[in-house]
Amino acid sequence: MASLSQPASEPNTSPLAKFIWGPENLQRRCDLLKELPQHAIFKNEVNLAALSRRDHWAYRVQQAQALIGIWLKKGWSRDHFLDANRMIGEMPCSPQFRIFFKNIQAQMSPEQKAFWIPKVERFEILGCYAQTEVGHGSNLRGIETSATFDSTTDEFILESPTVSSSKIWIGALGAWATHAIVVSRLIVNGHDHGNHLFMVQVRDLKTHDVLPGITIYEQRDKTLNTLRGLDNGVMRFFGHRIPRSQMFAGSSSLSRDGTYNPPINKNHSYTSMVIIRGLLSSELGLDAMKALYIAAHYVAFRRQFGANPGGMETRVIDYASVKNRLFPAIAREVAIILNGRQITAAIEERLGTNMEDMHIMSVGGKVYASEHAARDVEIARLLCGGHGTHESAGLGRSYTLLSAARTYEGDSYVISLQLGRAITKCWQRGGEDTLPALGYLRRLRKPTAYQQRLRQDESQAWHDRAVQDDVLEQRVSILAGQFLEDTRKGKDTSFQVLELTMAHTDLHYVRGLYSALESSPEEGKMALKALANLFTISTLVNGLSTFAGSDYLSYNDIRSMKEAYQTALVEFEPHVPCILGAFAFTPWETRSSLCPVDKSPYDAIVGHAMGSELNDNRFMRPTILNIRSLWKNQQESRL
Amino acid sequence: MASLSQPASEPNTSPLAKFIWGPENLQRRCDLLKELPQHAIFKNEVNLAALSRRDHWAYRVQQAQALIGIWLKKGWSRDHFLDANRMIGEMPCSPQFRIFFKNIQAQMSPEQKAFWIPKVERFEILGCYAQTEVGHGSNLRGIETSATFDSTTDEFILESPTVSSSKIWIGALGAWATHAIVVSRLIVNGHDHGNHLFMVQVRDLKTHDVLPGITIYEQRDKTLNTLRGLDNGVMRFFGHRIPRSQMFAGSSSLSRDGTYNPPINKNHSYTSMVIIRGLLSSELGLDAMKALYIAAHYVAFRRQFGANPGGMETRVIDYASVKNRLFPAIAREVAIILNGRQITAAIEERLGTNMEDMHIMSVGGKVYASEHAARDVEIARLLCGGHGTHESAGLGRSYTLLSAARTYEGDSYVISLQLGRAITKCWQRGGEDTLPALGYLRRLRKPTAYQQRLRQDESQAWHDRAVQDDVLEQRVSILAGQFLEDTRKGKDTSFQVLELTMAHTDLHYVRGLYSALESSPEEGKMALKALANLFTISTLVNGLSTFAGSDYLSYNDIRSMKEAYQTALVEFEPHVPCILGAFAFTPWETRSSLCPVDKSPYDAIVGHAMGSELNDNRFMRPTILNIRSLWKNQQESRL
Ligand SMILES: Cc1cc2nc3c(=O)[nH]c(=O)nc-3n(C[C@H](O)[C@H](O)[C@H](O)COP(=O)(O)OP(=O)(O)OC[C@H]3O[C@@H](n4cnc5c(N)ncnc54)[C@H](O)[C@@H]3O)c2cc1C
Ligand SMILES: Cc1cc2nc3c(=O)[nH]c(=O)nc-3n(C[C@H](O)[C@H](O)[C@H](O)COP(=O)(O)OP(=O)(O)OC[C@H]3O[C@@H](n4cnc5c(N)ncnc54)[C@H](O)[C@@H]3O)c2cc1C
Repeated sequence: MASLSQPASEPNTSPLAKFIWGPENLQRRCDLLKELPQHAIFKNEVNLAALSRRDHWAYRVQQAQALIGIWLKKGWSRDHFLDANRMIGEMPCSPQFRIFFKNIQAQMSPEQKAFWIPKVERFEILGCYAQTEVGHGSNLRGIETSATFDSTTDEFILESPTVSSSKIWIGALGAWATHAIVVSRLIVNGHDHGNHLFMVQVRDLKTHDVLPGITIYEQRDKTLNTLRGLDNGVMRFFGHRIPRSQMFAGSSSLSRDGTYNPPINKNHSYTSMVIIRGLLSSELGLDAMKALYIAAHYVAFRRQFGANPGGMETRVIDYASVKNRLFPAIAREVAIILNGRQITAAIEERLGTNMEDMHIMSVGGKVYASEHAARDVEIARLLCGGHGTHESAGLGRSYTLLSAARTYEGDSYVISLQLGRAITKCWQRGGEDTLPALGYLRRLRKPTAYQQRLRQDESQAWHDRAVQDDVLEQRVSILAGQFLEDTRKGKDTSFQVLELTMAHTDLHYVRGLYSALESSPEEGKMALKALANLFTISTLVNGLSTFAGSDYLSYNDIRSMKEAYQTALVEFEPHVPCILGAFAFTPWETRSSLCPVDKSPYDAIVGHAMGSELNDNRFMRPTILNIRSLWKNQQESRL
Repeated sequence: MASLSQPASEPNTSPLAKFIWGPENLQRRCDLLKELPQHAIFKNEVNLAALSRRDHWAYRVQQAQALIGIWLKKGWSRDHFLDANRMIGEMPCSPQFRIFFKNIQAQMSPEQKAFWIPKVERFEILGCYAQTEVGHGSNLRGIETSATFDSTTDEFILESPTVSSSKIWIGALGAWATHAIVVSRLIVNGHDHGNHLFMVQVRDLKTHDVLPGITIYEQRDKTLNTLRGLDNGVMRFFGHRIPRSQMFAGSSSLSRDGTYNPPINKNHSYTSMVIIRGLLSSELGLDAMKALYIAAHYVAFRRQFGANPGGMETRVIDYASVKNRLFPAIAREVAIILNGRQITAAIEERLGTNMEDMHIMSVGGKVYASEHAARDVEIARLLCGGHGTHESAGLGRSYTLLSAARTYEGDSYVISLQLGRAITKCWQRGGEDTLPALGYLRRLRKPTAYQQRLRQDESQAWHDRAVQDDVLEQRVSILAGQFLEDTRKGKDTSFQVLELTMAHTDLHYVRGLYSALESSPEEGKMALKALANLFTISTLVNGLSTFAGSDYLSYNDIRSMKEAYQTALVEFEPHVPCILGAFAFTPWETRSSLCPVDKSPYDAIVGHAMGSELNDNRFMRPTILNIRSLWKNQQESRL
């Protein structure tokens, strides 16, 4: 794998790269890479990790200023802005076109959009999305903030009656935002109509002071420095008033006389969630892939133990311990990226129609991407040994982002419950024949037809798509069967639903990957086939515990499956440079001392140390000298 | 579990607490808790996370100054100092009594000890341990730094010939240390005698300037803020000279005339590693337990979904998703703490004798503790939903420490190779009958005697120690068998050794836990029995994939095993307050907004936000106002 030793210095625009990134995404990436690195503020020279929280945030605001200026000047798309944001790292402007804009787009009336969207697109107002409260995150029905209609003034009065009703975790609210989309119960004439969205100005547009009737505190640091450049905020309302026109009126609305017009379909309430989870499904994969890209180049460079002919030690990428962690992770993240993008596209196509199946799909995608991404980045770091633990390796930054993603936009266990519910519903009404995603439930109607031994003594059999699919279906049907049985018995199934969701998504991601491959360019077909095969067999091997005690797989099956897995690893190995070469993250994107282009990683690591803010430690020397003589005081006082 | 709602405000000194902490450890902890929180610098008021790297480090130096002063004054033991260090968090003085002192104690000659130990114990000199190089961490044979004997002056000349020979990752070397124990090849008359230890002064004792012939750079931030208060350093030697007397002469030595006296037994070379890994085996468990303690109290307070009689929502601790993560993790970490302490004690007892089996034991303990601790802390964080992601929750701090522990003092895969080697050796010489730790290899001599079906249809059977032990032995013997077969075939087994090491340790930790229980106080016997049972059955369930395709466990076995697991969870549940109560971490130790004693977590979280360094954001308002008007420039320039 000689070509791995040299990371890319520019983006790759080959047909394979277009296929992997998506042609428009790649074009946007090229646009951004041409422009952004030229600007001093984006030059990666400031060591953000060493700054205080205050200075860090201020620097991120300055980066936001520069980015918004460039974006306006270039007339780029909103997607350009989103991508730039992801490349640069979290800034207070991050929520603007994600959760703020997307909710406006999905849930305001046409007139409201005409009024608000231009302001949002010009950054004339700065937005955030205020849903979570101190007491309620997962259970939105428990939200306590109320918006009571006052028909005398045609206004809503916002109240946060308790500490637990304080809005919290609101990204960009702490110091940056002028406006918040507030999720609040709508109260009309003493009647509670449940949660609705309201556009609420929170700071004065001239002075940036928090408006009267509102208190806002910034939340301080998040763990592991997660999203340090973002000012999450805590907010309470004390009789704050907003005009009636600021209730989102895309589906339900309130007339001047207090008549409530309920939504025609209930879709709207989760549309924006579906969109964001869809986005995350592929985005998180790209972040994890960047970490694996860095690690792959470093382990191809690093040598340790085992002298080879010529006296050089063995490259660590050649050890089983490294291959068995790195290669399946690469395959998995490519599967996540390609499937995630299919989910995003499907959601966009279906906007406005019945989206219940998209809802389930986006849950699977988000849970799968976040659970695997956090672990795969940790794998990347561990692969690099001690040097993976340098901040300058660039692996920790991804970890904080990806690990938190297991919680935000819905805790993995909590949102997996939705797949459980879909399965129960489908099973009860016998819907599996018309709902292809849950077709595997058929196996539960005729269990005996499927429980015979597979008998794939030859490892070659495991490379057969039909055999692979059979095992994947069998596994998820076993888990679904246990789930349905436990549900019937009234047991709490909230633990097992996560494994069920992962197995369900394993099956669909394998299928989705193979179907995506059909439109792949000739150039990369071999590589992608080897990748898909490895991804598939690795999901089989990782899912084996489900088959303990089952007759379905025999001892010989397992032996041959594990052999097939090793073959798939070996077959994928020569294609690794081709796959990583298609990603071709530039040094500006990786910001990693472990894969520099113009020097060796060792020079980069030592060079980085030469800039340490503690190299001049004269300011602490008097203290250190004092410490070294403390024992004398002790001896004197004993005399 | 009502009593869980109130975390402890003082340490518990009941017989159970003594048993769990160890009586001396608990006494030391009480001594420290009485003294340290009184001092302003240890009052937990400074928000370290918000500081710049430089200020953070400086604050840690000041804490070190205070701690050393108190320690000298009180005349406390070295163990007191180590424990205080762990409570306060990493400071530059952390290596002094760990790796610095312990190497001196284990590897210097009596005369050398008489000279150096008093200086170390007085903090007259400040130490660090310099082994790892840029190019070599795991493979110590590859170390390039050389100490060449110059008989004309009776000195060694230290050289770092290349960038890759730079010492790196050396904790406390970056700015703090005056002395380093340097691992270097010994060269005498052109003959390379391999690695030896040398005491090297690196900074001037009057000015704290780095000495001529040496360069030192501080390494800058570590990922995820890991050990931010520690100044890890990179060091090179350019013909730096030290007297011959500074070669560690506890086992091998060099005479004035250049005669090399090789070590009599090779034990010495790994003694200090064994000691430190032994220490880590239990320490890491305590850190993870602290995180679980915080999470347990929070999930007993937090309510979400599912109204109960009286209208209150369900406590999240009552969900299967929470119980199935939290309770086994608590049981596991107690098992780790108790077994780890047994390892530490066994090592101390055996110092100076043949320690090969201690070596293997300490590898198992360190790998097991670090792999589980990192995951269990992540579980703790995820259990707490969004609020677990506040820095003030106190969970991230443990994670950074524990996740890095998978790498430092030996990468998990690399050091697991040593168990693999021991197994191969034992198998080849038929030693399993005399080496109880590897007794399970007997099963491989007569496989048919063990492969019959277990047939434990009744879940009650799984609570039987003999049945439990049989499955644990069977599992590790299957893995050992595959390992030996692959080794015989010349395959690279470096991936599978980690699973083998974990299974080996599962078996021994279950046994160790039950044997520890024999001396437990009456008071906690029931609780500890329920805990041991849960730990055991959870290791069985988590190890099921090994049995896929095997006749050993039937479908009914698995079903009854999973039932037994749920029973074990239910039986452990009422004892959770008792176990956590024995740990009784004080608020000063947890430093967590999620388990305060004098207010509700919600008040603590919001209160914490009120102190944010970004609440006064006037300094950035001009920039924000400018951003909001950037679009106007754009419009103007278009006119
Ligand atoms: C970095 C970050 C950024 C965020 N940004 C925003 C933002 O901009 N705007 C916004 O509105 N919110 C935001 N949030 C909030 C986030 O969406 C919520 O924290 C998240 O949805 C989790 O909800 P929770 O905190 O209530 O978890 P909880 O529900 O309290 O979870 C606690 C535990 O209970 C378990 N649990 C809960 N319910 C059940 C059940 N029914 N069955 C079984 N187990 C259960 C969970 O698995 C979890 O282990 C952010 C959060 C983070 C961490
Ligand atoms: C926070 C921290 C503090 C530290 N403090 C100190 C200190 O005070 N003093 C000091 O001297 N050192 C210190 N170290 C260094 C530490 O001990 C080493 O980094 C660690 O032992 C790992 O070695 P490595 O970096 O060479 O890993 P590598 O060996 O380079 O590991 C890279 C990858 O290769 C794999 N690998 C390597 N060899 C094999 C093999 N034979 N078979 C299969 N796979 C293999 C590993 O599994 C890993 O995935 C510290 C490190 C850290 C992170």
